[in-house]
Amino acid sequence: MSFDRLILKIKEKNNPTVAGLDPKLDYIPGYIKEEAYRQYGKTLEGAAEALLQFNKGLIDALCDIVPAVKPQAAYYEMYGWQGVRTLTETIAYAKEKGMFVITDGKRNDIGATMQAYSAAHIGQTDIENVKAEAFGADALTVNGYLGTDGIKPLLEICKAEDKGIFVLVKTSNPSSGELQDRKLDDGLTVYHTMGNMCENWGRDTEGKTGYSAVGAVVGATYPEQLGELRKALPHTFFLVPGYGAQGGGAKDVAPAFDKNGTGAIINSSRGIMCAWKKENCDPKEYAHAARREAIRMRDEIISCID
Amino acid sequence: MSFDRLILKIKEKNNPTVAGLDPKLDYIPGYIKEEAYRQYGKTLEGAAEALLQFNKGLIDALCDIVPAVKPQAAYYEMYGWQGVRTLTETIAYAKEKGMFVITDGKRNDIGATMQAYSAAHIGQTDIENVKAEAFGADALTVNGYLGTDGIKPLLEICKAEDKGIFVLVKTSNPSSGELQDRKLDDGLTVYHTMGNMCENWGRDTEGKTGYSAVGAVVGATYPEQLGELRKALPHTFFLVPGYGAQGGGAKDVAPAFDKNGTGAIINSSRGIMCAWKKENCDPKEYAHAARREAIRMRDEIISCID
Repeated sequence: MSFDRLILKIKEKNNPTVAGLDPKLDYIPGYIKEEAYRQYGKTLEGAAEALLQFNKGLIDALCDIVPAVKPQAAYYEMYGWQGVRTLTETIAYAKEKGMFVITDGKRNDIGATMQAYSAAHIGQTDIENVKAEAFGADALTVNGYLGTDGIKPLLEICKAEDKGIFVLVKTSNPSSGELQDRKLDDGLTVYHTMGNMCENWGRDTEGKTGYSAVGAVVGATYPEQLGELRKALPHTFFLVPGYGAQGGGAKDVAPAFDKNGTGAIINSSRGIMCAWKKENCDPKEYAHAARREAIRMRDEIISCID
Repeated sequence: MSFDRLILKIKEKNNPTVAGLDPKLDYIPGYIKEEAYRQYGKTLEGAAEALLQFNKGLIDALCDIVPAVKPQAAYYEMYGWQGVRTLTETIAYAKEKGMFVITDGKRNDIGATMQAYSAAHIGQTDIENVKAEAFGADALTVNGYLGTDGIKPLLEICKAEDKGIFVLVKTSNPSSGELQDRKLDDGLTVYHTMGNMCENWGRDTEGKTGYSAVGAVVGATYPEQLGELRKALPHTFFLVPGYGAQGGGAKDVAPAFDKNGTGAIINSSRGIMCAWKKENCDPKEYAHAARREAIRMRDEIISCID
C-alpha cells in the first residue's frame, strides 16, 4: 500500500542503501565463471548460471546489513530467457533472505499492457483461476511518459498487494536534462512536472510514514534537483541511483532525505559488486569485499544525514 | 542501418501492416490451451506453451501476406521466464518464416544499461568472445525520456547489424497528452520535441528510401498529430499502434504515410488475434480467421493511401 515496509527494513538495519545487482561477466570472479562454463559451456545458460552464483554469494554476505537489492533487468535479458530465469531465482533468493526487492525494469506502456507488466513484476498471473507469481518483486521502476493510464494498473496492485513503484523523474545520466530539464509553458521543468504527477498518483496510498506507494527515481548526480524535489514532493519516497561509480558522493545524496533522515534509499551497484577488484583481494573473498564496501557506504551516508 | 529492409518487405507484400502478437490466454482457442495444460498443468509453463502454439499458428497463416510481427514483451513476461522463452521462440519462428520482428519492449535506461538492452534485443551478447543471440529481433521500441545517452548504444548496433528502433513520440492511449501534449517554453509540444530528437538521432543512418534507423511510435488515435509529425519528420519511419480495437480506423492512419505511400507501418493486435471470436467461427479455424482479417485490414489501409 505504501513504502512503509521498505522504510521499516531501512530502520531495522539503520541503512538507507540498496545494493544494485547488475552483474556483468567482467564483475564476476573467474572461479565462479569457470565452474558455470564447465557445466553449461560458454553459452547463455553458462553465463546465467555464473550470474546466479555470484548474486547468491552477494545476497548471503549482505542480507543482514543491507535492506534491499535492485536487480537491473537489462543485465539478465542480455543472457536471454536463461538470464531472465536467473533474475527470477535471484529475486526469490533475496526475498527468502528477508530483503526488499526492487526490479529495475523502467517498464512503461498503455493501460492494458501495463496490467500485464504489473502482474508480471509485482503482482500475480492468473492461469484459469490458478494464481502464479512470475517475478514477484516488491517494487518496480517505471517510466511515466504515457501518463496516468500507464500507472493506474500498477496502483491497483500496489494497493492490493502492498507493493510500490518508482517513477523516473530526474535520471542520473549526463543527457537526462535534454528533455527532463526543459521548461514547460507554466515555467516548471519536465522533471518537476513528472514529480508532481507522482504526488498525484500516490494520493490515498500514504502509509504511516507519510510516504505513498509511488516513489520517484532521482539521480545522485544532480544534488540541487534532488533537494528541490525533496521539498516539493513530501509524500514521494526517492530511489537515488548515481552514487559511487557514476560520480555521486555522500554529500550529494544528503538532500534526498527529509528532516527525519528518511525519505530515500541510495543505490550502489558497481561499487559493491566490484569491491573485490578495487581492494585487489583474493577473488574468493568477493562477497566479503562487497560487505566491507556496503558497510563503508552505509556509514558514510548515515554520517551525512546526521 | 535503416528501415530499408522493413520497407522492402512491405513493398514485396504490398502491405504496410504489422501483426501484434500480444497473446492473452483469453484470445487462445480452448483446444490449444487444453493440450498445453495436459502436458504442463495450469502453470506458467503450461500458459507459455499455449502462447507458443497459438503464435506459431498465426505466423504460419500470416507470413506470406504480412511483412512483420510485433510481439509485446509484457504479455510474455507475465508468464515469467517460461513466457520469455516463448518470446524467444516466437521471434525465431517468425524470422525463420521471413518476417521482420519488432520487439515491443519500450526499454529505456542510462547508457551503460542500454548497452545491455541493445545486445539483448537487437544485438548479440558476448560470452568470453563467444557471440550468442539472446532475442535477436530486427527492431525494438524504446522510450527517449533519458535523452541521447540512452539511445546511442542502440544506434551503434543499428549501424553494425542493420537493425532499427522506434522511439515513443505520441502514444495511442487516452492519457498520452498529460505530458506529451504539454508545450515547452519554445512553443513546441513535448511529443514534437521528442520527434525532432528522433530526426537528430537518425542522422547519418538514412537508407535508400530516405528513412533512418530511428523510427517513431505515433498512435492512430491521434490522426491530427500523426499528420503534423509526418510533415515535420521526413526521415523518421512511423510505427502506428491504435488501429482497430483501440479505436483508430483506416482514415485515421492515412496521414501517417508520405506522398509515395510509404513511411509507416500500422499495427493491429487484438483485431487479428481475436478475429476467430469476432467471426464466431470454429476455434480450430482461428488462424484462417486471422488471415482473413489481415487481408481485410491490408485492403482497407491500401485503399486509404491511394
